[in-house]
Amino acid sequence: MFNKNNVKLLQEELKKKNLKAYLIFTSDAHDNEYVGKKYLLERLFFSPFSGSAGQVLITQNDTFLFTDGRYWLQAEKELKGSGIKLIKDGDKDVPSLKDFIKENNLFPLGINLKNITESKYEAFLKSGVQIVDTSFKYLIDEKLNEEVHKVFKLNDDLVSLNYKEKISIILKEAAKSGADANLVSTLDDIAFILNLRGGDIPRNPVFYSYLYLSKIAGNHLFIDKNKIDFELDDITIHSYEDIFGFLSRHKDIKTLVDPNRINAKAFKLLNQPIKGRNPSYLMKAIKGEKEILNTKKIQALDGLALLKFQKYLEENIDKNLSEYDYSSKLEEFRKECPLCFDLSFDTIAAVGKNAAMMHYEPTKSNHSIVSKDDIELLVDSGGQYYGGTTDTTRTFLIGKPTKEFIHDYTLTLKALIAVSSTIFLEGSSGQTIDIKAREFFWKEGMDYKCGTGHGVGYILNVHEGPNGFRYKKVPERDDQDPLKEGMITTIEPGVYKQDKYGIRIENNLLCKKAFENDQGRFFKFETITYVPIETKCLDLNMMSDEEIDWLNDYHKMVYDALSNLTKDEELLKFLRTKTKAINKK
Amino acid sequence: MFNKNNVKLLQEELKKKNLKAYLIFTSDAHDNEYVGKKYLLERLFFSPFSGSAGQVLITQNDTFLFTDGRYWLQAEKELKGSGIKLIKDGDKDVPSLKDFIKENNLFPLGINLKNITESKYEAFLKSGVQIVDTSFKYLIDEKLNEEVHKVFKLNDDLVSLNYKEKISIILKEAAKSGADANLVSTLDDIAFILNLRGGDIPRNPVFYSYLYLSKIAGNHLFIDKNKIDFELDDITIHSYEDIFGFLSRHKDIKTLVDPNRINAKAFKLLNQPIKGRNPSYLMKAIKGEKEILNTKKIQALDGLALLKFQKYLEENIDKNLSEYDYSSKLEEFRKECPLCFDLSFDTIAAVGKNAAMMHYEPTKSNHSIVSKDDIELLVDSGGQYYGGTTDTTRTFLIGKPTKEFIHDYTLTLKALIAVSSTIFLEGSSGQTIDIKAREFFWKEGMDYKCGTGHGVGYILNVHEGPNGFRYKKVPERDDQDPLKEGMITTIEPGVYKQDKYGIRIENNLLCKKAFENDQGRFFKFETITYVPIETKCLDLNMMSDEEIDWLNDYHKMVYDALSNLTKDEELLKFLRTKTKAINKK
Repeated sequence: MFNKNNVKLLQEELKKKNLKAYLIFTSDAHDNEYVGKKYLLERLFFSPFSGSAGQVLITQNDTFLFTDGRYWLQAEKELKGSGIKLIKDGDKDVPSLKDFIKENNLFPLGINLKNITESKYEAFLKSGVQIVDTSFKYLIDEKLNEEVHKVFKLNDDLVSLNYKEKISIILKEAAKSGADANLVSTLDDIAFILNLRGGDIPRNPVFYSYLYLSKIAGNHLFIDKNKIDFELDDITIHSYEDIFGFLSRHKDIKTLVDPNRINAKAFKLLNQPIKGRNPSYLMKAIKGEKEILNTKKIQALDGLALLKFQKYLEENIDKNLSEYDYSSKLEEFRKECPLCFDLSFDTIAAVGKNAAMMHYEPTKSNHSIVSKDDIELLVDSGGQYYGGTTDTTRTFLIGKPTKEFIHDYTLTLKALIAVSSTIFLEGSSGQTIDIKAREFFWKEGMDYKCGTGHGVGYILNVHEGPNGFRYKKVPERDDQDPLKEGMITTIEPGVYKQDKYGIRIENNLLCKKAFENDQGRFFKFETITYVPIETKCLDLNMMSDEEIDWLNDYHKMVYDALSNLTKDEELLKFLRTKTKAINKK
Repeated sequence: MFNKNNVKLLQEELKKKNLKAYLIFTSDAHDNEYVGKKYLLERLFFSPFSGSAGQVLITQNDTFLFTDGRYWLQAEKELKGSGIKLIKDGDKDVPSLKDFIKENNLFPLGINLKNITESKYEAFLKSGVQIVDTSFKYLIDEKLNEEVHKVFKLNDDLVSLNYKEKISIILKEAAKSGADANLVSTLDDIAFILNLRGGDIPRNPVFYSYLYLSKIAGNHLFIDKNKIDFELDDITIHSYEDIFGFLSRHKDIKTLVDPNRINAKAFKLLNQPIKGRNPSYLMKAIKGEKEILNTKKIQALDGLALLKFQKYLEENIDKNLSEYDYSSKLEEFRKECPLCFDLSFDTIAAVGKNAAMMHYEPTKSNHSIVSKDDIELLVDSGGQYYGGTTDTTRTFLIGKPTKEFIHDYTLTLKALIAVSSTIFLEGSSGQTIDIKAREFFWKEGMDYKCGTGHGVGYILNVHEGPNGFRYKKVPERDDQDPLKEGMITTIEPGVYKQDKYGIRIENNLLCKKAFENDQGRFFKFETITYVPIETKCLDLNMMSDEEIDWLNDYHKMVYDALSNLTKDEELLKFLRTKTKAINKK
C-alpha cells in the first residue's frame, strides 16, 4: 500500500492548500478502542507502520510517526527506508504531539475532523493550533474489498429491555438536561440500545453507524444499508454517510451529545448542542436480570474451555508447542461451544519474560516455545458468546517456581481475594476500593502499571465504562462512577518483573447488594468466573485462614458450575484435582 | 436586634424595588467557613435565629428560615412568635432553597452579590432564577462596636518562605494559565501568602482583606487600615472597601480568580477573568521544613495539656463537673503554654448520648454532668499556637464499658492504625486510602457520616484543603488532591450510636516519603499527635500483633515526646501509666 510517492503527492497538495502539515490519527469517527480496516486505510497508505496505535504527521518536507513504547521496536523496523522519522511518544524529553506541532509552528494544520473527538479538537484549538478540516481521500487509489458483516438481532431471551423501552428511558434522561434529542455515535452504545450486534471490528461485535433519537424529529439509524436486512419499528434507516446532511437539516434541535465521544465534524453541525454524557453509557454497564443470568451461564461454558485447555497444557508440556499453538488450541476449545462466535480480544499466551511485557501477544511469526524451562504460562483470554463476554487470566505453573515467584504469586492472589470479598457503601467507586488490591504490592515497593480492573460489556466490547478499578482518576477514561448493582468489572492484579516473569490472576466480579440498613445500602461482589486457580505455587504461610477459606469456597463453586457441563470422566477427574481444597497443614 | 418591624420595612422596600424576595446568607465576602460578626449582623437584624448556618428568605409577605438538621430544634425555639417559618433543609420531601425559589417564582430575587461565590451565583442563573444585586444595609440602624484586631507578622523562624518568595511562585504559576494577575479573596490564603495573622474571626487567625498580585499592576492589599500598623515592602495597602474601585480600574488585566471562592460582585468587575484555583491553595497545604518542625514542637506541648486534662478528669470524675467545666479546664491547661493564643475551634466535650451527636458542643447554659454513669467522655479539641494548629480527639473511659462499646472502640482504633500505617504510591488521594479506615465498619453495616479526615492549617484554619480523606468525591469540597510530602491531614474514624454513645479517635498525620524505586515514589504517614490512647476498653483478641505493636510504638513515642516537657513527678507517673505497653496475655 505505502510507497514514498504517496507522501510526495500529499506534500504537493499541502503546498497548494497552504497547509503546514496534515495529521492522521489511528482512530475512527466513533472513538472506538479498536479501529475497523476502512479507517486504517489512510494511515497505511502514507506510512508502512502496521501497529495499532500511533499518529502520522506529514509536513511539507518531512513525515513523522508518533507512537508509544509498545511499538518503538516494531516501528523502527517497519519505517526503515521509508524516510519517515519515529518520534518516541512518552520518552524522556520528547514533546507531546500537540507541543511538537506548536513548537514547530506546523499550522494551519489539516485534520479530518471526522477522526477526532470534539474534546480533543477543542484542546488543540485552546493550545493555539489552527486547524482546517481536510481530507486527502481522493489521493488514495486503493480500494478495500471488505466483507459485508450483517447486523443481527439479539433474541428476546438475551435482553431485559427491548430497544423501544431503552430509547424511552434515554429520551427522558436527555430531557432532564433540556435536550430534545440525543445523538449517539459510540458503536457499543448503539448496539446496546438497539439490541443489535455486528461484525465490523474483530473482537468487538459492533457495526459502524450513528443513532439519532428524538421525540420531535423521530429516531434515525445511519448505517451501510447492505449490512441490515430488516426494518426497525419506529426507526428510519438512512445511509451511513447521510448523517452529516441530516444533522445540518436538524441543527436547531437541542441535542444531547458527548464531546468526549462525538467527532468534531458532527459536533460542529449542531447549533444547540447540549454537552453531556450519553445516558446509554451508564445504562449499558448496569446489566439486567437476563443479562446477568446469561452471562453466568456462558462464563461457566468459558470456564469449561479453559479447563480443557489446562488439561491439554499439562499433557503437552513436553511437546515443544509454542505460545501461538496454545492460544490457537484455546480458541478451538472455546469454539467447541456453539454459543461462542468470536474471541473478546486476541489471546495473550506468554511464558516467562514475555509474560512480563503487559501487552505481549504471540503471533504466527513471533512467539516463544512453551516448556518447563519457564516457570509459568500466563493466559489472558476471553470469548464473545450469545449470552455474554468473558475476560479471564490464569497463570499456569509449568516449571519450577522460585521463592520469589511463589511470594509474588501469593501476593497477587491475596490482592484478588481482598477486592473480591470487600463490603462497601453505595457511592463507592473503583478508586475507593483499588487499594484493597494494590496495598500488598505497595508495601513492598511494587506496583502494576495499569488499572486493577475494567468494566466488561455484554456480548460487546470487553472494555467499557463507567466502572473500573484504579487508584487515581484518569479523566479521559471516565471510568470512576460509583459502582452499582448489576455492573460487571474485572479484577486483575499482577506482578511484572522484567526479563523474569509475569503473573496475573483475573476474575469478573458482579456488583450485588450485600445488605441495607439505616446507615445506607451496602454492596459486595459475586465472582462469576469459573476457572480453577493454580494452588501449587502458593505460600500458605503468607495467607490468612479467611483467605484460604475464600479460595476453597471459590473452588467448590467452580466445581459445582463446571461438573454439570461435562460427562467426560477424565475431565471431571482433572477438575476434581484442580479444585481440591487446600489447608495449612 | 431583631424585631418584626425590621422585616416589614424590608418588605416595603421589596415592593418599591419590584423584587419578589431577598435572600440573606450566613456567609461573608470571602467564603470563610466561619463568619465574622460584622457579616452576621444583617441576618440577625431580620431574624432571631442565632445558629451558625442558615439562610433567611424574605418575600413581600412572608419570611422563611432554611437551616439543616443540626439547628431545627434551636430554630423552632428561637423563631417562636417571630412570624418566620422554618424550612427544614435536608428533610424528606423538602425542596432545596433553589427549587423553593424556582417553584414559587420568587424572582427577580435580591441578593448581595458580595456574599455569594461566583460558582453559586452561576448555579442560580443556570437554574433560571433572575438575580438583582441588592443591599438593605441602609435599613440596619444598629452599629457593631467591634474591637479592632491587629494584624501581626509571623517571625522568620516560623515560616520557610518569606512573602516575596511566595508571591513570586504564585505569579509564575498564574502565568502558566495565561494570567497576569491573581486576585485572592480567601482569608487563610492571604494570611499564608503574607505570613501575617489576625483576629477577625474567633478560632481562625485571619483578617478580612483582599490581595491582588500582579507583575504588571503591582501587589495590593485591601484591609481596614486600623488593623495594620506597619508597611509591607512591595505591597500597596488600600482600604478594604477600595477593592471594587480598584478592580474596575484594572478590569482588563487577565486575572486568575477562583470562581468557587471569589464573591460574584468582585468577579463581575473583571473583563478577563481566568477561572482556576489559586496557586496558594495547594502551596499552603504543603508545609515547609520550619512549619513541620514547629508543628511537631507545639503538638507535643498540646499533648502535655491534654495529658494534664486527662489526669484532672480522672481525679475529678466524682465531683459532678459538667462537660462545659471540663472544656473550660482544658482551655486553661492549653493556655498555660505561652505559645497558645487561641483554640482552633470550640471544644467538643461530650458524654454518652451527647457524644453520639457529631456536632454537639457544650455551652455555659446547655451541657450535661460528667459522671461514671456514662461510659465515655469524648473530647475533640485543638489549639492555635505560635508554631502550628492542632486538632485531636480522644475518647476517655469514665464508666463501665459494655461489650458493644469495647467492640466499637476497638474497631475505631483499628481503623486509625490501618490508615496511619499505609504505604501508598504517589498520585494517591485521600479517596484512595479512605477505605482502609471505613472497611472495618462497613463489614458490620456501620458508617460514620462524615469524612475520615481533613487538611489542617498552620497557625491557621483547622480545616483546609486540598487534602482530605473521604470515600467518594464531594466536588464542592475540592479536597481530593493527590497527597504530597508535607501535607498534614487528620484521621478521625468513629462510631456514633444514637442515644447510646459516640466514639472517635483522631490524630494528625504528616505525609512523608517512604521510599523511591523504579516503580515510583512511595509515601507513608508520620503521626504527629502525642496524646495517649485509652487502652482499657480494647478487645485485644480483635487486634493483630502488628496492630498491638503499632500502639505500643505509638505510646513509646508519646512518652518520649512528653516526658521531656515536664518535671512534675506526678504527671510523669501518670504519663508512664497511660503509655504502658500492652500485650495479649
